[in-house]
Amino acid sequence: MIVASTSTLYGGGYLEYLLPELSKFFENVSSLLFIPYARPGGMSHDDYTQRVRTAFQPLAIEVKGIHELDSARDAVKKAEAIFVGGGNTFVLLDRLYQEDLLPVIREVVRSGTPYLGTSAGSNITGPNVMTTNDMPIVDPPSLKALDLLPFNLNPHYLDPDPDSKHQGETRETRIAEFHTYNEQVVIGLREGSWIEVRDEQMLLKGSLSARIFKPGFKAYELETGQDLAPLAGQQ
Amino acid sequence: MIVASTSTLYGGGYLEYLLPELSKFFENVSSLLFIPYARPGGMSHDDYTQRVRTAFQPLAIEVKGIHELDSARDAVKKAEAIFVGGGNTFVLLDRLYQEDLLPVIREVVRSGTPYLGTSAGSNITGPNVMTTNDMPIVDPPSLKALDLLPFNLNPHYLDPDPDSKHQGETRETRIAEFHTYNEQVVIGLREGSWIEVRDEQMLLKGSLSARIFKPGFKAYELETGQDLAPLAGQQ
Repeated sequence: MIVASTSTLYGGGYLEYLLPELSKFFENVSSLLFIPYARPGGMSHDDYTQRVRTAFQPLAIEVKGIHELDSARDAVKKAEAIFVGGGNTFVLLDRLYQEDLLPVIREVVRSGTPYLGTSAGSNITGPNVMTTNDMPIVDPPSLKALDLLPFNLNPHYLDPDPDSKHQGETRETRIAEFHTYNEQVVIGLREGSWIEVRDEQMLLKGSLSARIFKPGFKAYELETGQDLAPLAGQQ
Repeated sequence: MIVASTSTLYGGGYLEYLLPELSKFFENVSSLLFIPYARPGGMSHDDYTQRVRTAFQPLAIEVKGIHELDSARDAVKKAEAIFVGGGNTFVLLDRLYQEDLLPVIREVVRSGTPYLGTSAGSNITGPNVMTTNDMPIVDPPSLKALDLLPFNLNPHYLDPDPDSKHQGETRETRIAEFHTYNEQVVIGLREGSWIEVRDEQMLLKGSLSARIFKPGFKAYELETGQDLAPLAGQQ
């Protein structure tokens, strides 16, 4: 799996910064199943799939939108590789529940189907989406998610701005509030960072460190290149 | 009702900027029922109530925490006035559902009990809390709320930062996504703004304008002093 904080870096094209990594990760892949359900900016499934199709042209990977196929469940089962794009996490999760796709995605990824997630598509790889930054514009039947990673993610992680006069909660305060009610370790994944999951290893990649939040401990930085897997047991 | 974006302005004390308004609003009130369930920063109900008690001392208003009383429902029915403080909107709403308090709060406020809300306590005055900024750290049975105001609120409204390199959605993008799935008008209420509801009038107060989001229309500014009630029918 490649689980990325964001699809796009400031000033860059869609997926551009990840392409070198993706060309290795998808080396033996000729077609990709894209799940556009998170609908960034309310964009249609067709438009979103077209954006992804264009991005994967340099890698000579054919992209199919899951909404274009007769059976979404069959499409997941047969997929050579899966990409779940970003947008609104609640919208994404709600649709995955409607189509009962969570169990089948979980199953094929555990069996080795390569999975790429960005933003909302990364959020759903944790036990639940309770550390999303998104607005709850729809109300899914549950906030439980794929549970493929043993910790929660906070994509697009932002450090508190010391000059801010805004009184809304910082990301760090929000995650501390999460730990009042929940036990999961949370990885604050900055834009430009991703996690590469291969067998038992979960490497932090990209140039930045990640911020680690464990209930009862002070948050701390983990340097890039480190394995996140040992955090799994520490709840 | 007084429905405020925030309890606190940068550099100011808790409720300080609102005190002149509250001294008029609560002129005939000697005791206030405080609902601390939103638990800002995970703070205990006792600590939060103590903070509010201190803030209301200059107005000679006695503050009771709803958690200190035998029956929460009776406490609401008998309250001279109600204040629901800010924190996490999901935590607040979940607890209100657990104690089945939404119908009784709705009823007494409609019958004239003065209601003060800040932040999360303001969010719940709309039809639902789907335009909250908060993290879904608990999962309430529903996102439907008090439905005392005919539109949704986005407290702590923030304008897009033109210098930002961050790729997370702006508040305006999030609210546009909300309108892909929902019809309610959304009021982006900046810190320092509040809505004063008296009979049929809903005046925007404070020094700032508010940002108005209607589905299918470009967002626009409404100047302070204007009546928001006419927006109610426009869905």
